[in-house]
Amino acid sequence: MRIYADNAATTKMSRAAVEAMLPYLEEYYGNPSSLYSEGQKAKEALEEAREKITRCINANAKEIIFTSGGSEADNQAILTAAALGKKKGKTHIISDTIEHHAVLHTLKKLEKEGFTVTYLPAHENGIVRVEDLVNAITGDTCLVTVMYANNEIGTIQPIKEIGAVCREKGILFHTDAVQAVGHIPVDVEDANIDMLSASAHKFHGPKGVGFLYARRGIRLETLIEGGAQERGHRAGTENVPGIVAAAAALEEAAGSLGEVSERVQVLRDRLIEGLKKIPHSALNGDPQKRVPSNVNFCFEGVEGEALLLLLDDKGIMASSGSACTSGSLDPSHVLLAIGRVHDVAHGSLRLSLGDDATEEEVDYIIKSVEEVVTYLRGFSPVWRDLVNGKSKFIL
Amino acid sequence: MRIYADNAATTKMSRAAVEAMLPYLEEYYGNPSSLYSEGQKAKEALEEAREKITRCINANAKEIIFTSGGSEADNQAILTAAALGKKKGKTHIISDTIEHHAVLHTLKKLEKEGFTVTYLPAHENGIVRVEDLVNAITGDTCLVTVMYANNEIGTIQPIKEIGAVCREKGILFHTDAVQAVGHIPVDVEDANIDMLSASAHKFHGPKGVGFLYARRGIRLETLIEGGAQERGHRAGTENVPGIVAAAAALEEAAGSLGEVSERVQVLRDRLIEGLKKIPHSALNGDPQKRVPSNVNFCFEGVEGEALLLLLDDKGIMASSGSACTSGSLDPSHVLLAIGRVHDVAHGSLRLSLGDDATEEEVDYIIKSVEEVVTYLRGFSPVWRDLVNGKSKFIL
Repeated sequence: MRIYADNAATTKMSRAAVEAMLPYLEEYYGNPSSLYSEGQKAKEALEEAREKITRCINANAKEIIFTSGGSEADNQAILTAAALGKKKGKTHIISDTIEHHAVLHTLKKLEKEGFTVTYLPAHENGIVRVEDLVNAITGDTCLVTVMYANNEIGTIQPIKEIGAVCREKGILFHTDAVQAVGHIPVDVEDANIDMLSASAHKFHGPKGVGFLYARRGIRLETLIEGGAQERGHRAGTENVPGIVAAAAALEEAAGSLGEVSERVQVLRDRLIEGLKKIPHSALNGDPQKRVPSNVNFCFEGVEGEALLLLLDDKGIMASSGSACTSGSLDPSHVLLAIGRVHDVAHGSLRLSLGDDATEEEVDYIIKSVEEVVTYLRGFSPVWRDLVNGKSKFIL
Repeated sequence: MRIYADNAATTKMSRAAVEAMLPYLEEYYGNPSSLYSEGQKAKEALEEAREKITRCINANAKEIIFTSGGSEADNQAILTAAALGKKKGKTHIISDTIEHHAVLHTLKKLEKEGFTVTYLPAHENGIVRVEDLVNAITGDTCLVTVMYANNEIGTIQPIKEIGAVCREKGILFHTDAVQAVGHIPVDVEDANIDMLSASAHKFHGPKGVGFLYARRGIRLETLIEGGAQERGHRAGTENVPGIVAAAAALEEAAGSLGEVSERVQVLRDRLIEGLKKIPHSALNGDPQKRVPSNVNFCFEGVEGEALLLLLDDKGIMASSGSACTSGSLDPSHVLLAIGRVHDVAHGSLRLSLGDDATEEEVDYIIKSVEEVVTYLRGFSPVWRDLVNGKSKFIL
């Protein structure tokens, strides 16, 4: 048995997405900028895909720019707000401590250019407080960028409340919604979102495709200069097969959103209850305000990497922290930000369930994690010190 | 009969590329940054693809960064050289008048930031002269960026000679090789190329994938900030299926390069000879120093767009200028740069043959173009004025 429980890292393409993609690889391969019928057919497919996307997030077609993924969209959104801010002499940005690196590293770049960034705390439950935001706003604030749902601990931010505050104060609001779109309902109008980033491979679409929603009237900065594609906001021949597949995937995901999330959420909670029974373990992030698929735990006295490798042996594919930083020896910045100490953060496990997860799989995961944690603690000098009272249990 | 003669705009994916891609969509879909076996399998495929690419251009694996396409690679290369130059106080760049907009618009951006750019003339035959380059170099020059082969008129620049000059003077040399890689032999060592951009969909690979070659020791500027993918030089989950397909396509194209180009070149010359017979027509660009597939003509007294639409009716898919600027009413900057006057440049036709083009197809194209040009001239007031001596023939 192989269980894929790393859907926050990437997802398997849906059948609908693959089938939507295939004809555009070898048959309707024309360049959408071409005048002849095959080119125009590709152009129509592109615009139809754009329409589909808009319907899923309640936007308009002219508000969607296709990108190579969520990271590119994050970069472009933030640089856009910064450029607009600079023109008005406003160089203060508000974000938070648990953003994705696509946001954090772009903000670091802006800090070097003279921007000031306030990072709101995510508190113990991994959720930003609206009153912290209100207190952080100054007359100099040009952008608030707070992610919709966290990629490691799955916590959902109070996006609608944040959007309302930003709208009232006339401040641009961007949200990295890579973990939200296709997983929980997203409505850019209702939540007063000005810019939103999404990535297709997180909702069973292809890798290498994403989109940036930017409210009409926002003049986008160009990240990739060149041809006049995407109304001059994003150069390069459009990845028609990928874009068509992305739209098909999102349409399907959005269509079954309530049904899937209700079912997966029950499994998530079963998994959480099961893992909680392992001694000296703790759930990371809010138990309720999290995406339906996400479970993230710390196990004291256990090394995350060893845990993953042994779970792999048992057929379970999971991750510690995010895929983007694996290979790094530093513990997750998200876990540190919600108050986990260095050693504890090192023993983390993220399980992100698929839409087709089953109770049987969840029970197998619980049993396996328990076995592996117990096994690893048997070898762990850190655990021995804890048990012998030489150091103190935290969890 | 439908004849696709717009291979410079985009190509049909090869069977080899499609077959290489498919298993990575639904089967080996793991994130290459993941520790478990499926992730590592994706990682291996990614590195194997990188190795394949290096073998085709004589580079090393650590010198290849995968991007979302040629435009992104052009942007990143030029911004890298500019950042390195700025550190040394060098802010002069040399390019030429017939570059792709991905290069020209990036240079425009740098000019606004205080860089000075010398645009070498492409002369009547569409080829830059090395002596012009030598004369343009100053102690302040930090980058020479000259395309390998032009996307509209197909002319091949003296890349090896330019590389030798740059190496001798210690100046970084970048080439936009989007129209060259997979079509003519490219050897980065032999030609002393420091950075090179390529795009998979131009050599029968997928859209949305490209790569940037950067010689070891060149510290790349990051265009897309975020995760540590591509050794920290390009964030975002790697498009494994696309990258694997790109490598398969290039391997195949590079493997049959000599054989295909020899055959296609004969057809190209047959097409050129046939179109030359149309009165008041002229080939754009050098008759010999051009990529094997490219034919580009001007027809006096004819409107390019009408020509394309009527050819489409006859089953011939072609373009005027580049796909990236279609929709624009301005005539091609390339044709203006090689000395075509505004009106003549408007009557241009680019035919870029496929690897599987046939003599029969070429003859049909010649016959059809002749018919369409004659037909359109019958309605053209410009042509009437020319025939009646009210204005003078140029071609």
